[in-house]
Amino acid sequence: MTQKAATPILDGITSPGQVADLSDPELAQLAEELRRRIIEVVAHNGGHLAPSLGVVELTLALFSTFDLDKDKLIWDVGHQAYAHKLLTGRADRFHTLRLLDGLSGFPRMAESPYDHFGVGHSSTSISAALGMALARDLSGLHHHVLAVIGDGSLTAGEAFEGLNLAGHMGRRLIVVLNDNEMSISSNVGALSLFLSRTLSRRWVRQTRREVLKFLRSIPRIGQKLALYAMRGEWSFKSFFTPGMLFEAFRFTYIGPVDGHDLPALRRHLQMAAAVEDGPVLLHVRTRKGKGYAPAEKNPTQYHGVGLFTPETGLPVASASLPTFTRVFSDTLLELAEKDERIIAITAAMPEGTGTNRFRERFPDRFVDTGICEQHAVTFAAGLASQGYRPALAIYSTFLQRGYDQVVHDVCLQNLPVTFCVDRAGLVGEDGATHHGAFDIAFLRHIPQIRMLAPRDEDMLRHCLKTALSGDGPHALRYPRGAGFGVPLAGEPRLLAPGVGEVLRQGEKIAVIAVGNRAHPALEAAALVEKELGFSPLVFDPVWIKPLPEEQLADLARRFDRLLIVEEGVLAGGFSSAVLEFLNDHGLLRGQRIRRLGLPDSFVEHGKQLQLREMLGLRSQGIARAILELAREA
Amino acid sequence: MTQKAATPILDGITSPGQVADLSDPELAQLAEELRRRIIEVVAHNGGHLAPSLGVVELTLALFSTFDLDKDKLIWDVGHQAYAHKLLTGRADRFHTLRLLDGLSGFPRMAESPYDHFGVGHSSTSISAALGMALARDLSGLHHHVLAVIGDGSLTAGEAFEGLNLAGHMGRRLIVVLNDNEMSISSNVGALSLFLSRTLSRRWVRQTRREVLKFLRSIPRIGQKLALYAMRGEWSFKSFFTPGMLFEAFRFTYIGPVDGHDLPALRRHLQMAAAVEDGPVLLHVRTRKGKGYAPAEKNPTQYHGVGLFTPETGLPVASASLPTFTRVFSDTLLELAEKDERIIAITAAMPEGTGTNRFRERFPDRFVDTGICEQHAVTFAAGLASQGYRPALAIYSTFLQRGYDQVVHDVCLQNLPVTFCVDRAGLVGEDGATHHGAFDIAFLRHIPQIRMLAPRDEDMLRHCLKTALSGDGPHALRYPRGAGFGVPLAGEPRLLAPGVGEVLRQGEKIAVIAVGNRAHPALEAAALVEKELGFSPLVFDPVWIKPLPEEQLADLARRFDRLLIVEEGVLAGGFSSAVLEFLNDHGLLRGQRIRRLGLPDSFVEHGKQLQLREMLGLRSQGIARAILELAREA
Repeated sequence: MTQKAATPILDGITSPGQVADLSDPELAQLAEELRRRIIEVVAHNGGHLAPSLGVVELTLALFSTFDLDKDKLIWDVGHQAYAHKLLTGRADRFHTLRLLDGLSGFPRMAESPYDHFGVGHSSTSISAALGMALARDLSGLHHHVLAVIGDGSLTAGEAFEGLNLAGHMGRRLIVVLNDNEMSISSNVGALSLFLSRTLSRRWVRQTRREVLKFLRSIPRIGQKLALYAMRGEWSFKSFFTPGMLFEAFRFTYIGPVDGHDLPALRRHLQMAAAVEDGPVLLHVRTRKGKGYAPAEKNPTQYHGVGLFTPETGLPVASASLPTFTRVFSDTLLELAEKDERIIAITAAMPEGTGTNRFRERFPDRFVDTGICEQHAVTFAAGLASQGYRPALAIYSTFLQRGYDQVVHDVCLQNLPVTFCVDRAGLVGEDGATHHGAFDIAFLRHIPQIRMLAPRDEDMLRHCLKTALSGDGPHALRYPRGAGFGVPLAGEPRLLAPGVGEVLRQGEKIAVIAVGNRAHPALEAAALVEKELGFSPLVFDPVWIKPLPEEQLADLARRFDRLLIVEEGVLAGGFSSAVLEFLNDHGLLRGQRIRRLGLPDSFVEHGKQLQLREMLGLRSQGIARAILELAREA
Repeated sequence: MTQKAATPILDGITSPGQVADLSDPELAQLAEELRRRIIEVVAHNGGHLAPSLGVVELTLALFSTFDLDKDKLIWDVGHQAYAHKLLTGRADRFHTLRLLDGLSGFPRMAESPYDHFGVGHSSTSISAALGMALARDLSGLHHHVLAVIGDGSLTAGEAFEGLNLAGHMGRRLIVVLNDNEMSISSNVGALSLFLSRTLSRRWVRQTRREVLKFLRSIPRIGQKLALYAMRGEWSFKSFFTPGMLFEAFRFTYIGPVDGHDLPALRRHLQMAAAVEDGPVLLHVRTRKGKGYAPAEKNPTQYHGVGLFTPETGLPVASASLPTFTRVFSDTLLELAEKDERIIAITAAMPEGTGTNRFRERFPDRFVDTGICEQHAVTFAAGLASQGYRPALAIYSTFLQRGYDQVVHDVCLQNLPVTFCVDRAGLVGEDGATHHGAFDIAFLRHIPQIRMLAPRDEDMLRHCLKTALSGDGPHALRYPRGAGFGVPLAGEPRLLAPGVGEVLRQGEKIAVIAVGNRAHPALEAAALVEKELGFSPLVFDPVWIKPLPEEQLADLARRFDRLLIVEEGVLAGGFSSAVLEFLNDHGLLRGQRIRRLGLPDSFVEHGKQLQLREMLGLRSQGIARAILELAREA
């Protein structure tokens, strides 16, 4: 339970409508209370601090202007919705944020009638809001529909699609652009420069001058070209205001307005609400981390945080082992020193994927695409087609956005792109929207891909080396969090395709444990030996595709009972591939094969360990499964 | 073999560099020859006629301005690249276009060194080109990189991501916007209006006047609001030129230029090539179908065509049975008459998906999102969250673009969106980029989804009714082309979830045939009975998810030999799900289970029947598989 400072005004709010009745001084105090409570709880539970602190006033302005019992409000991504949660009847449970069975870190329709649309992945809000706006009009209703979207989220293609279609359909809709000049990491994209207006008159004039000068220098036709350029529409009219861009998309543009000036925000929201026809974009400038000095100073670091001390902002020390991500980051650098073809790509996650260190060492060979997973995959394919070896470091859940491009641009052309699939398996507190549950199932059926699952941080090094040395597409999946503390043994080495490792010889039962489940399986085998006096064999396939066919065939012949363990959905997952292989090669002869993995339902949030415990994926659970299998008739 | 008119200049071109040496009159004649040859071959083989006719001059201008042995050229989508193929050493094989073992209908790296990047799905070209531009700069080379993209393709999110990142990275890159004011169907999106400049001053002034008038009418604060609106940046500066939008993305904008005026095109391409820094957008206006009267008149109909008579443009009559698409279209209309909640959505394919007829009947309940699959899925989720029952009609291969949204926006929230997955399985001549090979594998592992595969046009009606009546997400998959000529029996009825149908009782071997493979399996069973004197059982599961578990269990108990047939990838597909089920319920006891479906490699182009024949998926092939299974020891 967290320390709870007094929050008298917040305590009195039982429904969002009450916010409208508060006076300006009361609202100011409420903003203060919300921030205090958010900092307290996030310091204790971890979470998305800076985004939620940045929109406290915006949330209050929205709540005092709109009627959330009728109007619909969608928070893009949703990691900024903590104040929203506190004001919608969930203050008494807010200390359970992101905990098992507690509040989700994101809006969820099932959690509150005021969470009008569930979110988690970025850039969906405008599309969903447009659907709601059409539904409203077809139903003859008149409420408002609002989407609040950050400038970072606006870089993703889906947000553009939503903007473009909203302008086309002309439905009444309010998009609030939460412009904090910063997505999760520093923002990228021409659009971002545009919003921040560095596209200055000076730049435009200078560029124009240079181009014309060059044109005139071309023998014979140059002078004509230059004249043509000056006369035509090649006119360098580039000194826009942000509004002009959105008006090009047929939005009425309002703003920018200071996102921490509550009366101004309300005035502008009322203006937006008063526009009777078509979509409106209200441009709000906020400061990420607002009201908490450490977060204001370093919003990237405080975007998503682990436990910290509220007074200082310093992280609560945890003597953790190096993470998979860190070892990936080190190894990629090490390999890139010797191979100039290696390029590191991230989609807005340099810190999260550990590629920020690559950026420092090889700035020219590092690309942050922003939240543009589709582009990132095809861009990597473009590089690979020219002989480079791009490593796209991406969270499993976000690679879902690039599935078509993995099929169509990378695998169909057999290009040597390496997908470094971080956060594969259970991610913990971010929950259902963020678990890397599906990557094996959505990748293994794609022809030409090779897929590896390193069991620990040492194996990660060899898998990465192998992938980057191969001539076609590779994916390696590794989990969020600490490794197993194994020593990193020498130089990364090449692994033979489709060859796994027997980690422990044994009898009666063969345990086939993929990736990060191999070490727990070893522990389980040791437990079983101690308790039951027999020692199961433990096999790490290393490769998900191609399967280690010979070794699997051997195990299938020698063992009548097999347990397959994977941290991914069972449907279509690794164990499914093993069944296919054994069946298609006539190796199924009535053995008992038990499969342990993620169920055919969405797994909720909680600590990784708790979730693994619940699903029987820790060593004790694996041992239990072995025992049950051993005891079956 | 097609009739071949004389094409003397074309016949003399053996490498693309020769185009630069031709005089203007020669080029004009070559354009004529290219058109004639394209019309001849497409009339005979089917193909993408209007797009390729529209870019003949553009292709010649590109070839005479750039050096394709060094410069890189990417055709977005690639269905407009027939002239490109004819000019790059493939004229002598052009009559094999889209035929089995012949030229692909799209550029492919494996087909020619001048196909610099493979395409098929839209909107990938800028991303790939940007990757190539970075590769060039890192390698210290200086060639040009060009992407040619249509205005329709520009609506997709990935194209926007590419534009935004190209502007950000500032690499030298030429994007040729092939603006034919028309994508596959009529274009959608605010951007399109913008390009066609209907965003007129008059519209802007009128809107402004109306808003101000409304503001002033608000009691008390209205006058103030109106003043504020006029003073602030809310300024309606919306009378742009197209160039301003692209300049906002930090592109140098050149154009527009008439895409059928070869000298003008060359001048403009030279201007684009002369820009030394950063990306350039050259705006070219073309006419789809140019030079062939029937196609100019009706470019949508002549976008992709079957066989037709060149002289008249009239399709070669084929006494075909009603297609699955047509029956879907009829049934959706029929159901929508009785259920106002049904909304039809397409992503730029009203004709292809048959939703054009819905558009005519219920214009308010029809939405064409343009090439925006991600948006389309989330938009449908938004509608469903408000009580509507959206039916998103989409090709299997294009639904790949919305995979993340299916998971995150629809299934996680258990919203009643129906995915009407057309062109599931082998599509034929469009080949590897377009086969609907993966939908079972990428959908069945998503929790909460239900998935159906109607075996024929009658069952399609019941599947659609069932899906649209359900309370959660549903997908139904059906193939391209004609149905089986079965009678449409009465009203669409509700199907019980997870219940399949035994189509034919039998002995020895149970054939489980999914979707459109059920009827061929019945034929195969009849063949087997005639030849071998035993009659296999044929079971249609109807449901891919939930599986017909009881019936499958019963079959697994009664039969020692089972054959599973599906027109989709075997890896992670339907038969994989059956193996999982049987294994997990202890029903595998050494039966022989043979799986027939798409292999773990990309299937190339050819007629549907030919491809099915090759893969053993026609009745003869299924019969052969039954026989082999029967004869196995």
